[in-house]
Amino acid sequence: MPGTVRPGGRTARVREAVLHAAGDALAERGFAHLDLAEVARRAGVGKTTVYRRWGSVTGLLADLLEDMAEQSEPRIEVGSLLRELEANATLVRRTLTDPRQGALFKAVIAAATCDALAAEALHQFYAARVAEWAPCVVQAAERGEVPADTDPEQVVRAVSAPLYYQLLTTGTPLDQAAAERAARAAYDAARAGAFRTGR
Amino acid sequence: MPGTVRPGGRTARVREAVLHAAGDALAERGFAHLDLAEVARRAGVGKTTVYRRWGSVTGLLADLLEDMAEQSEPRIEVGSLLRELEANATLVRRTLTDPRQGALFKAVIAAATCDALAAEALHQFYAARVAEWAPCVVQAAERGEVPADTDPEQVVRAVSAPLYYQLLTTGTPLDQAAAERAARAAYDAARAGAFRTGR
Repeated sequence: MPGTVRPGGRTARVREAVLHAAGDALAERGFAHLDLAEVARRAGVGKTTVYRRWGSVTGLLADLLEDMAEQSEPRIEVGSLLRELEANATLVRRTLTDPRQGALFKAVIAAATCDALAAEALHQFYAARVAEWAPCVVQAAERGEVPADTDPEQVVRAVSAPLYYQLLTTGTPLDQAAAERAARAAYDAARAGAFRTGR
Repeated sequence: MPGTVRPGGRTARVREAVLHAAGDALAERGFAHLDLAEVARRAGVGKTTVYRRWGSVTGLLADLLEDMAEQSEPRIEVGSLLRELEANATLVRRTLTDPRQGALFKAVIAAATCDALAAEALHQFYAARVAEWAPCVVQAAERGEVPADTDPEQVVRAVSAPLYYQLLTTGTPLDQAAAERAARAAYDAARAGAFRTGR
């Protein structure tokens, strides 16, 4: 059935099925129980294919994070730094409160605390997400909304930090007020010069 | 030897030895490998005593976190919110960069992502730490340094959040500049009204 073949063909379909199965398994049971044979079974793909292509649980996790970075929603441009940081915070909040995605992120963060390769893959995922959103701060600096020597990456990280910290260290639900507060605090601090590189 | 008996006597000494051994085991191998029998052996305490008193790995973790909260350094008062937030950030940074303590915190955060009782114990630990530092914001509001309706807990959490976020999502070392930036950003945002409850 040619209509069901996505660009990339069989190889891309196998990757998609395996990464989806890996994400489900991680969200349900965590990294400690991730098993290549089980992922292959869930994905309906031969075990040998999975072992040959991904090699290890960590290799699979790294590819999953790369795919998540590629699939992530692009930055929203509205010409106002506060609105753009709010859009980013809302996106982070939506991801972390989604039952599957939230569990998946928790599992991957847990994996990164005890596995150096998982940590490296996670760092690359966040570096890609930060790089995607950093231009909103560069443009705001050009418009004079924040000091010219503001570190764009620090501002973007400041939006996500309180949301992840709340997720991991409190039982309080991540509501929209939390997202707006995170964006507002990063914005106010940036305007006051807290993220100036010369500081 | 009476001189070696701490207040509380044998029960307190057993608890201290067991919690220290549990902390070491967690820092070295993580929550997934925490084992009551091994902790008893490391602590030089009978296995039965450990099982009877703590019951489970999660029970032991909860008691360890309670002890960590009790042992934590008290708030520093200097009459300036920025200096007090910097002192808090420096303390958080020192804890997270200490090899044993940093590994221990990562292990406990990982445990909390997949174990509800561990999560509850972790939430209580952070609630105690936040409550310890919140009065510095209350006093700053009384001095007029921040708006009167500033949420003290949000300000304190805003100081820690970027440090934990950096620890968990980047490979960048947590240096003193990161601690000062975290304190400054929380302070600037609080002064601008980002943590007002009426907002």
